[in-house]
Amino acid sequence: MKIEGRNAVLELLKTDREIDKLLMQRGAEGSAGRIFAMARERNIRVQFADARALDRESETGRHQGVIAFVSEYAYADLEDILSAGEKGQRLVILCDGIEDVHNLGSILRVAECCGAAGAVIPKNKSAQVTGAVVRISEGAAGHVRVARVPGINYAIDKLKEAGFWVYGLEADGEDIYGCDLTGDVALVVGGEDRGIAALTRKKCDKLLSLPLSGKVNSLNASVALGIAAYEAVRQRR
Amino acid sequence: MKIEGRNAVLELLKTDREIDKLLMQRGAEGSAGRIFAMARERNIRVQFADARALDRESETGRHQGVIAFVSEYAYADLEDILSAGEKGQRLVILCDGIEDVHNLGSILRVAECCGAAGAVIPKNKSAQVTGAVVRISEGAAGHVRVARVPGINYAIDKLKEAGFWVYGLEADGEDIYGCDLTGDVALVVGGEDRGIAALTRKKCDKLLSLPLSGKVNSLNASVALGIAAYEAVRQRR
Repeated sequence: MKIEGRNAVLELLKTDREIDKLLMQRGAEGSAGRIFAMARERNIRVQFADARALDRESETGRHQGVIAFVSEYAYADLEDILSAGEKGQRLVILCDGIEDVHNLGSILRVAECCGAAGAVIPKNKSAQVTGAVVRISEGAAGHVRVARVPGINYAIDKLKEAGFWVYGLEADGEDIYGCDLTGDVALVVGGEDRGIAALTRKKCDKLLSLPLSGKVNSLNASVALGIAAYEAVRQRR
Repeated sequence: MKIEGRNAVLELLKTDREIDKLLMQRGAEGSAGRIFAMARERNIRVQFADARALDRESETGRHQGVIAFVSEYAYADLEDILSAGEKGQRLVILCDGIEDVHNLGSILRVAECCGAAGAVIPKNKSAQVTGAVVRISEGAAGHVRVARVPGINYAIDKLKEAGFWVYGLEADGEDIYGCDLTGDVALVVGGEDRGIAALTRKKCDKLLSLPLSGKVNSLNASVALGIAAYEAVRQRR
């Protein structure tokens, strides 16, 4: 897998993740110097090449002079997420069919920034954590635990057994600002077009909505999740 | 300009905007029928073609069987935004150098959903409201007022004259949850890499930050703006 772009590679270098090789553009300036120093400190092999060689290797077209080669994304187990964080203050993000890589990357960035214990994605009908998602997450995907499960409903059962309240974000739910989001909470965010699947909706303890003023009837999935997750952060302070 | 995708075209049809032509895929089902009916009701010329013809016309590669041809995006004047909404409860979004079309589209969707009086973008060093931005905004760009100004600092001066408080979203500001966001408020969101420009930072009445827990030091621009705008919505209720 390739991790591209300066911020994403900088964040990758801060993790314990094994890096096979770093490809850097000859003469790159600015934060490239810091990246090189960190790579040397960790004894990572650095190879220099011209811009065209990096363009050829790039999968995203936005390498900014740095491409890291790593083994496939290391998913966490759902059990790791369930045993992480302080009981009674945990937050977990469940993605139900997020197919857009921009949304998934952005959601993982929210999960990392709001201090979530982890995020969960299904194996099918969902974007997976590819190099592009890592880059879009600005490296957050390397820090936050992401578990991959056969289906979101399985994860909901496990979370409920562990004492979590499970809330789905949907347009036709209760007002989120009237809901207590303290305690152990899992937020379910649905896919871009179809929202949360019917059976998953039923499994949620409640469906919650953001107030919408305009004529367009929904926010982008990662933005809606960000607003809901930070409402939980606000209530917990 | 081309507006592509079913949601974006449906939202376009709800506005008064003049549509030159609608190109639809032969045999398209689902919401395509509703789009066709709305177009007929408004006497818009509808042309049917096969999928390959739509693929050729598509600029985004995601037309979903519907492409609308419209004249260039109709920007609002800053004066229109200043005279919109109820005094003492207005919210305006200022984009300082948002270059990513996904972020700009997503920000316009936030502006529409949170009931903002409008959004402001600079003429240079910023993504403009193209067909791709309209599609990413799911048509919100057709409903919300977007003004284009020579520079954001000019807009800040005008907003201050009109009695607005101007708050910049930055990593090193005051805690947003300690700030009163009622009244007439303008939120400034900075570009993906460089944040808010130095002079613009100085012009803000305050810089505000979201609490960040993880190792990655910032949220995506549209997510951060969404959280801040909805904190204003929450406080105003």
